[in-house]
Amino acid sequence: MNTQTPTLDFSHLHNPTFLRACMRQATDYTPVWLMRQAGRYLPEYCATRARAGSFMGLATNRDFATEVTLQPLERYPLDAAILFSDILTVPDAMGLELSFAQGEGPRFAHPVRDEAAVAKLEVPDMDKLRYVFDAVSSIRSALTQADGRGKVPLIGFSGSPWTLACYMVEGKGSDDYRMVKTMLYSRPDLMHRMLTVNADAVAAYLNAQIDAGAQAVMIFDSWGGVLADGAFQTFSLAYTKRVLRQLKRHGTDGRVVPRIVFTKGGGLWLKDMAPLDCDVLGLDWTVNLGAARALVGGSENTSGKALQGNIDPNVLFAPPAQIDAEVARVLHSFGTPYQGSGSGPTHIFNLGHGISQYTPPEHVAALVQSVHQHSRALRKAN
Amino acid sequence: MNTQTPTLDFSHLHNPTFLRACMRQATDYTPVWLMRQAGRYLPEYCATRARAGSFMGLATNRDFATEVTLQPLERYPLDAAILFSDILTVPDAMGLELSFAQGEGPRFAHPVRDEAAVAKLEVPDMDKLRYVFDAVSSIRSALTQADGRGKVPLIGFSGSPWTLACYMVEGKGSDDYRMVKTMLYSRPDLMHRMLTVNADAVAAYLNAQIDAGAQAVMIFDSWGGVLADGAFQTFSLAYTKRVLRQLKRHGTDGRVVPRIVFTKGGGLWLKDMAPLDCDVLGLDWTVNLGAARALVGGSENTSGKALQGNIDPNVLFAPPAQIDAEVARVLHSFGTPYQGSGSGPTHIFNLGHGISQYTPPEHVAALVQSVHQHSRALRKAN
Repeated sequence: MNTQTPTLDFSHLHNPTFLRACMRQATDYTPVWLMRQAGRYLPEYCATRARAGSFMGLATNRDFATEVTLQPLERYPLDAAILFSDILTVPDAMGLELSFAQGEGPRFAHPVRDEAAVAKLEVPDMDKLRYVFDAVSSIRSALTQADGRGKVPLIGFSGSPWTLACYMVEGKGSDDYRMVKTMLYSRPDLMHRMLTVNADAVAAYLNAQIDAGAQAVMIFDSWGGVLADGAFQTFSLAYTKRVLRQLKRHGTDGRVVPRIVFTKGGGLWLKDMAPLDCDVLGLDWTVNLGAARALVGGSENTSGKALQGNIDPNVLFAPPAQIDAEVARVLHSFGTPYQGSGSGPTHIFNLGHGISQYTPPEHVAALVQSVHQHSRALRKAN
Repeated sequence: MNTQTPTLDFSHLHNPTFLRACMRQATDYTPVWLMRQAGRYLPEYCATRARAGSFMGLATNRDFATEVTLQPLERYPLDAAILFSDILTVPDAMGLELSFAQGEGPRFAHPVRDEAAVAKLEVPDMDKLRYVFDAVSSIRSALTQADGRGKVPLIGFSGSPWTLACYMVEGKGSDDYRMVKTMLYSRPDLMHRMLTVNADAVAAYLNAQIDAGAQAVMIFDSWGGVLADGAFQTFSLAYTKRVLRQLKRHGTDGRVVPRIVFTKGGGLWLKDMAPLDCDVLGLDWTVNLGAARALVGGSENTSGKALQGNIDPNVLFAPPAQIDAEVARVLHSFGTPYQGSGSGPTHIFNLGHGISQYTPPEHVAALVQSVHQHSRALRKAN
């Protein structure tokens, strides 16, 4: 297989719509999946989590992780599965000790706040993350149908080097990112050292997910958008590039593994992201999809990025009729995706951020149905 | 005085640098003031607040408000004073009952969450906000020097209609704006009614501040950036326009009163803001000042906006040498301001958001000195 122009054979999947769209190929409808689709808004997820005892009990157990990964796919005709895990598993494996107190966000027992702590950081032994790779293999098996083909592709993921650094320094979520930015502005040398280790660790982690069977990988730069112009390029984007440079292009089956980069709040820097060696850019709801397509979507048989996003998750609190109207608005803002036999601008529908735990599950059904219906109609109308 | 091309006479001020820059006139250096410059990072502020007993005790007392407004000007050669108050005084006057628990943000006793509560909303009697207008008059007197001229101009302000609505519905700060967005997407009719009342109330409030002596006014759209593309234009920008349409152009002394609009997280929508009937656009740190200048700054003797911002407040946690370097970076990203005798692109230095309560006061001194020094050098070099 030529790595420059890989043969894009998707016969191993019943539903390759998501992978096709990632590679800017035509699809009959716009594929949809939802960030955090396996989560607390689903009662069956809460039941499994209760059995697991804790979030980490859930995430570190292959069977539980497989179970919750599949739950949203049983309810909704989603076009991709995403590994159930957390973006902070890598720093946990570095020894920072991740935990989730009930009703609170993530917390590290050993945050990294001084020169000595930064000096000690190392790319962790990937054996410490074996539970993640085992979950990937297990989910892939569970997705395999009687005929040996997969139901939908499985997405693996990691936090970005900068996003990991935010949590590693702050020790938990933050309103103002005061501690991590104090280090960034006061001791950029320490920040660069931490980001280098993080980038190499993230690359090793994603490569191991690919080896275990992840069919696409996504880098969540959840906190890239809190950086100043200039600092974003230096302290986030440069290290996302360092990850991408080290990533495997193909799985053990020789098939291409698309890469998705999502920077929450990164809409102002799309031009800076255009040269990234990735296939898809994720966008939050502040971005106009039509404008983003014009900037980085490319055109027929020219390079460009597929775009993923970007409805406000809060739309899911409105009744189905309003959800339907907002779905149509988002699809139309992208416009008609490429319909030819080569490559061109494509759209993967998603939220602009993770789904809220308070979302009514039946509203998710309405959203998925609206995406599929409207996007088929959009293609026929053009 | 011709309202189209007002005579810009600033002889009533010792230091008119800020007002000149607002009106896109040349200045010898780049003026600087800081959002929330009268605040908890100053020990003298904390002492006054302790005497006042509470935040609202401080904000509603003319003498205390005057005292804390002047405190940062006594420490630093800032180029403008800003009224000490809160962005949420207007909903408080509507009967929502604002309070600040120690160590927490603002909270309303009576949030607006249903049709009945929205129906009851009215533009409040401005007499309920008399304490604000009294503070404005008192601060103006205190700023007046022995020769009858003012030391620096006084800025009045209000929250934007949308930002007020966020707090009015949520009842306090929010991570996800779930309740206000649920109303927006489910019952846009209620949201439009609330925003109409808010806009008319904000306009009356700012006009009363102008009558009391405010020499510039600023609209803080602190939460505009949480809206989706499309929703921002409909639910925030349209109502900022509604405020601006009703604002007085001149104070009781016949002098022009510049208007500043600041949308935190609004960098993607600068083109949408270009037609606003305001003089200055405030920018947060995610925006590249050079790019913003090219988009909305105009050129010599053509219309455009002065730009205000945009250093990350967290830079103030770094040592003075790094602060100096970052100040230079921000000034250079804007480039050399207009230096002719007509009007052209100008820059007002500020933070991209309010100053942190944890800021070392001596670092603020370093920042102000760096802005003045570097911006003089920048003019001489060109």
